[in-house]
Amino acid sequence: MATPKPERKIAESYVDVLIIGAGPAGVMAAMALNKAGVSVRIVEQRDDIIQAGHADGIQPRTLEVLHSYGLGEVSLKRHAAFYQAAFYAPDSEGVMTVSHPAFRCKLISDSAQATNHQGAIEQVFIELMRAEGLEVQRSTVPTSLEIAADDDKLKDPHAYVHKIVLHKKDQSDPLATEVVHSKFVLGADGAHSWTRNQLDIRMEGDSSDAVWGVLDIEAETDFPDIHNQCFLHSEHGAIIIIPREDNLVRIYVQQPPAAVESLIDPATGRVDRKRTSVSRLLEQTRRVFAPYHVDVKNGKIDWWTVYVVGQRVADRYSVNNRAFIAGDACHTHTPKAGQGLNASMNDSHNLAWKLAYVLRGWGNLSLLSTYEAERRAIAQKLIAFDRKYSKFFDKPRSDTNLAGVDTAEFHQAHLTLTGFISGIGIRYNSSLIASEHQALAHKLVLGERMLPHYFCGSADARPVELHDLLPSDTRFKILVFGGDVSIREDKARLRANADALESPRGFLRRLGRGRERGQWEVFDLLCFTSAKLAVHEYLDFPQFFREDWKRVLADDTNVSTRQGGGGYEHFGIDPRKGAIVVVRPDGYVSQIAPLDGVDVLDNYFDSFLI
Amino acid sequence: MATPKPERKIAESYVDVLIIGAGPAGVMAAMALNKAGVSVRIVEQRDDIIQAGHADGIQPRTLEVLHSYGLGEVSLKRHAAFYQAAFYAPDSEGVMTVSHPAFRCKLISDSAQATNHQGAIEQVFIELMRAEGLEVQRSTVPTSLEIAADDDKLKDPHAYVHKIVLHKKDQSDPLATEVVHSKFVLGADGAHSWTRNQLDIRMEGDSSDAVWGVLDIEAETDFPDIHNQCFLHSEHGAIIIIPREDNLVRIYVQQPPAAVESLIDPATGRVDRKRTSVSRLLEQTRRVFAPYHVDVKNGKIDWWTVYVVGQRVADRYSVNNRAFIAGDACHTHTPKAGQGLNASMNDSHNLAWKLAYVLRGWGNLSLLSTYEAERRAIAQKLIAFDRKYSKFFDKPRSDTNLAGVDTAEFHQAHLTLTGFISGIGIRYNSSLIASEHQALAHKLVLGERMLPHYFCGSADARPVELHDLLPSDTRFKILVFGGDVSIREDKARLRANADALESPRGFLRRLGRGRERGQWEVFDLLCFTSAKLAVHEYLDFPQFFREDWKRVLADDTNVSTRQGGGGYEHFGIDPRKGAIVVVRPDGYVSQIAPLDGVDVLDNYFDSFLI
Repeated sequence: MATPKPERKIAESYVDVLIIGAGPAGVMAAMALNKAGVSVRIVEQRDDIIQAGHADGIQPRTLEVLHSYGLGEVSLKRHAAFYQAAFYAPDSEGVMTVSHPAFRCKLISDSAQATNHQGAIEQVFIELMRAEGLEVQRSTVPTSLEIAADDDKLKDPHAYVHKIVLHKKDQSDPLATEVVHSKFVLGADGAHSWTRNQLDIRMEGDSSDAVWGVLDIEAETDFPDIHNQCFLHSEHGAIIIIPREDNLVRIYVQQPPAAVESLIDPATGRVDRKRTSVSRLLEQTRRVFAPYHVDVKNGKIDWWTVYVVGQRVADRYSVNNRAFIAGDACHTHTPKAGQGLNASMNDSHNLAWKLAYVLRGWGNLSLLSTYEAERRAIAQKLIAFDRKYSKFFDKPRSDTNLAGVDTAEFHQAHLTLTGFISGIGIRYNSSLIASEHQALAHKLVLGERMLPHYFCGSADARPVELHDLLPSDTRFKILVFGGDVSIREDKARLRANADALESPRGFLRRLGRGRERGQWEVFDLLCFTSAKLAVHEYLDFPQFFREDWKRVLADDTNVSTRQGGGGYEHFGIDPRKGAIVVVRPDGYVSQIAPLDGVDVLDNYFDSFLI
Repeated sequence: MATPKPERKIAESYVDVLIIGAGPAGVMAAMALNKAGVSVRIVEQRDDIIQAGHADGIQPRTLEVLHSYGLGEVSLKRHAAFYQAAFYAPDSEGVMTVSHPAFRCKLISDSAQATNHQGAIEQVFIELMRAEGLEVQRSTVPTSLEIAADDDKLKDPHAYVHKIVLHKKDQSDPLATEVVHSKFVLGADGAHSWTRNQLDIRMEGDSSDAVWGVLDIEAETDFPDIHNQCFLHSEHGAIIIIPREDNLVRIYVQQPPAAVESLIDPATGRVDRKRTSVSRLLEQTRRVFAPYHVDVKNGKIDWWTVYVVGQRVADRYSVNNRAFIAGDACHTHTPKAGQGLNASMNDSHNLAWKLAYVLRGWGNLSLLSTYEAERRAIAQKLIAFDRKYSKFFDKPRSDTNLAGVDTAEFHQAHLTLTGFISGIGIRYNSSLIASEHQALAHKLVLGERMLPHYFCGSADARPVELHDLLPSDTRFKILVFGGDVSIREDKARLRANADALESPRGFLRRLGRGRERGQWEVFDLLCFTSAKLAVHEYLDFPQFFREDWKRVLADDTNVSTRQGGGGYEHFGIDPRKGAIVVVRPDGYVSQIAPLDGVDVLDNYFDSFLI
């Protein structure tokens, strides 16, 4: 008896945000929006998570961002980390050697860089999402995207303006076709983004002619720095080494110019992995490494590829602030400085809280324009950096090649570029970043991420890392550096500041929504005194700041751990004058005001919050 | 129609270790044995986990022990922590005041003390056990314990010498009665231990006449140190304050001698909670606090009780090394120094690896004698400490009471006692602790826990906290401090040391069982050079130590984190002479030998391993 053919149904559903693509940008956006309580779906055409290779570097700033979502520890624990870089070049006799002992240097102060294969990095997000009830819907391909033409609809953030048709790869599934209506769409579908094509967004820029091979292997070698990041310059090309999880090492090996043509598939014009091989890449590696030898240990070749460096940025990041792209869909560049995955995740980190604000009715659609303003500028800087950095991978300077790269110069450049490479030096510029009162906290740069620093609980002297008080919970953090509460005038001024903050006309009460234990839905209030623990009591803070006693802190050293102290100085804040510092939900310093200038904050928040 | 009465079946089962009682000693033992792969069951008569109150303090050494089982972070994250202590007494006019600003002091260097209600502390263990497939069997009461009389059986660690009958409280359960045969029994069933009675073990010592009340409340107060540990001395009695989770505070309030009699139930001779009340305890608290006021906030009274201080130690901890008792079943003392839960957990921590060794056939039954030898001596010290410490809670010294307590003296005594209170100063003495070569590492005390210290990976300069390399995995850790590998003689001596360790006659190959990546089943090998990173390479270590490159370390400072350096000096080891340090599976330094004295270790391990 023939089984009756199942009736084909087309499911239809509604969601606030549909994310297309579950790579680093996609899972970061899905995790952040889901955590913020936004209704979100994420679809991916791959059937499974990536098992090896691809992007692998998590920079210090990205680790901070992960930490702010509660994912920092699991990331550091699961991934490999490295702490120093070594620089190698041929000596005067042409023998590869560490160019100077001092060239084995730190990467960036106080931070390691973490590495793992891309799938393992994504897995951390996927697990958190799963624990909170959100799954990536795999084996699913979007086939059409229609955006409402109605202008009124487009201006209404609660209108379902998108209609996306999704197809399951398994066409025998009775629900193989689905229509999704969404308020917003995020295309995080990679360098060859389908979403970007649908939105008619074009990539600007071009490919460089540098082709690199990549090998993820366990290495059997007498090279003494195999467990550090290394840069090797040689007549035979450059190599970059990145330590990885499970004793793996990633080797980037520059392809000889002569060989580049043979790697290109004439039919597509693209570099083709099939035109080379692991043994070819190993051979090239060995030429650069000599006199050190290198071989594959335990037969462990985890992944390998060849790629050409494209340096392109999308001409727009959004259409009407309703459809967005993020990650590789927006920008492609060399992986040499380990930026790709980081730039992608930080795109989504930047966008997520803004989308949450608009969907909650806390901000206008125009708030979303700052996403492109901020992140596209970073991508352009990244390309500029990339061009500059790539030049350092030319052949080493020698008597016969005076125009070549001097390792000492490269080393120096590397040090000055760490701010950018680490992501710590990223500076935003948009309507959300104020500028007038920078001088009041002159070492906290407006538009840059808030500096980490230890303070002490005023009531219990517990050491607190400031970043632990700045979670990515979509709240603006209002940091009141209240001066010295052990001095009468400062105490009175802080009292006046509290009164202004508490005023019905102030931003907290007008825009803050519900309040519980000293926190508003929109704002989180913290107060820091410059007074030492020995000369004040936590009861010296106005009651307004003490609603939660853990939110009043002192700029002093913890008796046990010796952490803390010098915070006002570190931030460039006068210990008697104080300042109010606003940190955005994504951790960036966006406004600085004097203690008696609560109206500065009123105006600031009125400019984009509703 | 009547349902047929289910047929009563008596289940019979076999297990290596049966634990009676799921308090702190019981869950620690169950977790540790289960983690070691031992077949274990744990039964408890309570129906549910304790929801509030009871023991609540986790001392720094216990936090280290939890860390060694991978439970340190979750403990610190979930529990409250406090960092300083304040000392209050009446001033010359009789007004309660902080006795000296400097008396707000650290508790113990580099460590907080964690607190939570007992159930929450136990929960951490229960969750880990559950994740590994072991559940506490609740509502279950043991009713008889028979021990085989056969001497041959008693000497055979693999014989099921115990027959225990268990009853479920719910007698309608068809499996209400069960007979368990076990090789070992551990009674962790509290101060009124059923197991102890079955084993005919007697408690020695008596009760003090001090009676204290305990209140776990949220406090509304103008007392400035409510979030710190505090000691208040007054004419009205003493108070101890312990900060707790969820804004709770624990208040220990001494009962006035005149009131003590009225608290005793003449029928039982025991202190009876029903004879006082929360308001009575609060009243007493207020008398001591005056002129500060104190009240219950948000109506939050989490738990309260009164107790009399018993100071007793069991005369034996074991019968035939087959049945053991641990925790409150072995010792009772004042909770004032927060030792109870800590002593209990550390009993089990001491016993667990020894039981695992005997069950695996790696050690003789006599190894188990060291449990009583080591832990009973600690309990006796605890009682002696308790007697001394309790005197400090007499009335304060004054013009009319010259024999009273001087707060400055108490403060001083408190500082000298922190080694004991924190658990860091615990020193074992038994046949497992050697003594001859103490001078080679004179700051590591034989019998005390290994000192924590940061070292750097020789290959990658990553900072490593030594305790992270000493997990409670039942392995002995062999720490080879190999001298300066950048100097030829030292390198040659380390090579000779490796040869001796590798020799077929050496303890590693004779007693170590299987080896994988530089670790044996019984031993874990780590090598530390005194050479700075800049003057050596990790390839300078003999290959024998480099089987796992992460196990060769340098006594130097990490370039990024500034952690590490000075380890040899910190341990009192000559940077050229070196030493071998043996750390037991439970983290205690048990043997020190010269680099050319591998035979010292051979003899040592031959004395108790088989």
